[in-house]
Amino acid sequence: MKAIVVGRGESRPRVIEKSRPEPGADEALVRTLRVGIDGTDHEVLSGNHGGFPEGTDHQVLGHEAVGVVEDPNGTDLATGDVVVPTVRRPPADGSNRYFDAGEPDMAPDGMYRERGIAGAHGFMAEYFTSPAEFLVPVPREFASHAFLVEPISNSEKAFELAYGSRSTFEWTPESAMVLGNGPLGLLTLAMLDERFDRTYCLGRRDRPDRTIDIIERLGATYVDSRETPVPAVADTHEPVDFVYEATGHAKHAFECVDALAPNGVAALLGIPEDWTFDVDGGRLHREFVLENKALVGSVNSSVPHFEAAKESLAAFPDWFLDELVTGVYSPDEVDAAFETGDDVIKTVVEFDSP
Amino acid sequence: MKAIVVGRGESRPRVIEKSRPEPGADEALVRTLRVGIDGTDHEVLSGNHGGFPEGTDHQVLGHEAVGVVEDPNGTDLATGDVVVPTVRRPPADGSNRYFDAGEPDMAPDGMYRERGIAGAHGFMAEYFTSPAEFLVPVPREFASHAFLVEPISNSEKAFELAYGSRSTFEWTPESAMVLGNGPLGLLTLAMLDERFDRTYCLGRRDRPDRTIDIIERLGATYVDSRETPVPAVADTHEPVDFVYEATGHAKHAFECVDALAPNGVAALLGIPEDWTFDVDGGRLHREFVLENKALVGSVNSSVPHFEAAKESLAAFPDWFLDELVTGVYSPDEVDAAFETGDDVIKTVVEFDSP
Repeated sequence: MKAIVVGRGESRPRVIEKSRPEPGADEALVRTLRVGIDGTDHEVLSGNHGGFPEGTDHQVLGHEAVGVVEDPNGTDLATGDVVVPTVRRPPADGSNRYFDAGEPDMAPDGMYRERGIAGAHGFMAEYFTSPAEFLVPVPREFASHAFLVEPISNSEKAFELAYGSRSTFEWTPESAMVLGNGPLGLLTLAMLDERFDRTYCLGRRDRPDRTIDIIERLGATYVDSRETPVPAVADTHEPVDFVYEATGHAKHAFECVDALAPNGVAALLGIPEDWTFDVDGGRLHREFVLENKALVGSVNSSVPHFEAAKESLAAFPDWFLDELVTGVYSPDEVDAAFETGDDVIKTVVEFDSP
Repeated sequence: MKAIVVGRGESRPRVIEKSRPEPGADEALVRTLRVGIDGTDHEVLSGNHGGFPEGTDHQVLGHEAVGVVEDPNGTDLATGDVVVPTVRRPPADGSNRYFDAGEPDMAPDGMYRERGIAGAHGFMAEYFTSPAEFLVPVPREFASHAFLVEPISNSEKAFELAYGSRSTFEWTPESAMVLGNGPLGLLTLAMLDERFDRTYCLGRRDRPDRTIDIIERLGATYVDSRETPVPAVADTHEPVDFVYEATGHAKHAFECVDALAPNGVAALLGIPEDWTFDVDGGRLHREFVLENKALVGSVNSSVPHFEAAKESLAAFPDWFLDELVTGVYSPDEVDAAFETGDDVIKTVVEFDSP
């Protein structure tokens, strides 16, 4: 079968022929429909994030997938079920309490592998196998866009943590800001649209721009960070109750404290490189305390977040999904699929038509 | 009656004669027993925190009080009830939704006054009045130490926020570290003793030292920050699940991210001045995300936290309270009561014997 991989020492994806995997006990065989591409894939390519499966000279890419059960292999799934795989798997030395609790997203480093990212092959191949417990069935009518369930699930988890941190008092948030107008930022903005009266999305693009059009069509306000940096948002617009950081820009993790309204919370999802800079730590610390603010870091997601993500995906308007997905490519068009640029939002590799 | 005040432009407390306050509607008259002194009182004296009541040339100090109801004045209280007052009161322009919800601790700046701190007279006088809703009855046998209910309540609230932030997954914390060996640090350490298997308390004192003796008698490990700075705690001891910051040292707000175990949370309570310094913000941001860490700022407390604090106070061993309270002074000994030094932990002004 065809698989899209990166080889050791390489930084470009390529197609190889690989033998179709055989499902083990409790595993189903899945025929891949579509696999989305995101920033993490590019980080895997650049060698900045994750690591190769042990004993291999290549890694199959891809962690945002949707497929069809080809062989249930004795699991509770049925042939033809449309499924979305979760990303984390137990480490080579076996399961642990995080997986036993159904919360692999909370497992610390060393206690998980991530398919397509760290220590395990991804889903960018004509077939993949997975334990049935890590395959989330989705309605057949979502087959085209269900590769978005994984990125959406990451935001569901971040929302859960953020709301949890505000659960001990009467929190009545009205405004939210997404930092970043990449695909995860836009997906999250569409999710927040239903929860908040007023939403903002921060980017650094000139008009005309496809992402700004989407932001505004969603009813949100575009904030150009070159004109209105994060700390100025409170004065220029309003202090916001919730900030969702999806830029990976380390200063945003600190600047967002200034953007928050009292009792507000910021969820951080970006994964920056080391970067040392000045902060007015005294003022940030003081504001944090006197205004009961909170910061939550969030990574990955588990089955309940995938379930929630199905609901969010179902609520998106068709135009939004049409605008978001800017390219559908065959495996042989892998170079085009991984191209980036201002006109590219979300691309997907299609192994079989949904 | 005697009252301990600071005058405008002054930085030392002094005793004045003041007329006994008259309770208004829904207010009781309370005869003060004891009022504790803490760092916030010293900040009020230095002019760094809070502000005078409108139209006055002095502020009555004190926000950690216990007293006896002298005149219930038609409220549900009874003469002789031992009560502890909460600190926040509605602003001059009337109540608001935070007070209506019973959560004045969540009110933002401008939507509250704080007795003895900001815009309202404190409790360091022979008598004070308060709306009955802000007076928390405590058992008579706690009268001697119930002035500690207020500081303890601040930690109860911080715990509530911290645990809330970890409530969406299976969090099984085992270790905790208190930053700061002042009275609030030691009170909090004694509270954590019951909740955590292993506790640490960070200070910068040489032995022999009264606070180190208390830390060790509580079964906790003393961490000398001159030998083991906060970021080194994870390696020297262990990464801890919970950090409670009570130093007001702004760098601790950032360094504590390194001390946290994966999925850990730090509660910040200190109120530092402005201070700009370098941080490796990229690394902190990344760790925050990849390890699902959280930071919560916490200020003040409301009636439910005072109720919880009564339970915590009741659970403290007698020796701990005896060691903690290093001086009981009459109002005329005000200078001695406000003295600080390595042998001073918690002092209290006694207006009437409990």
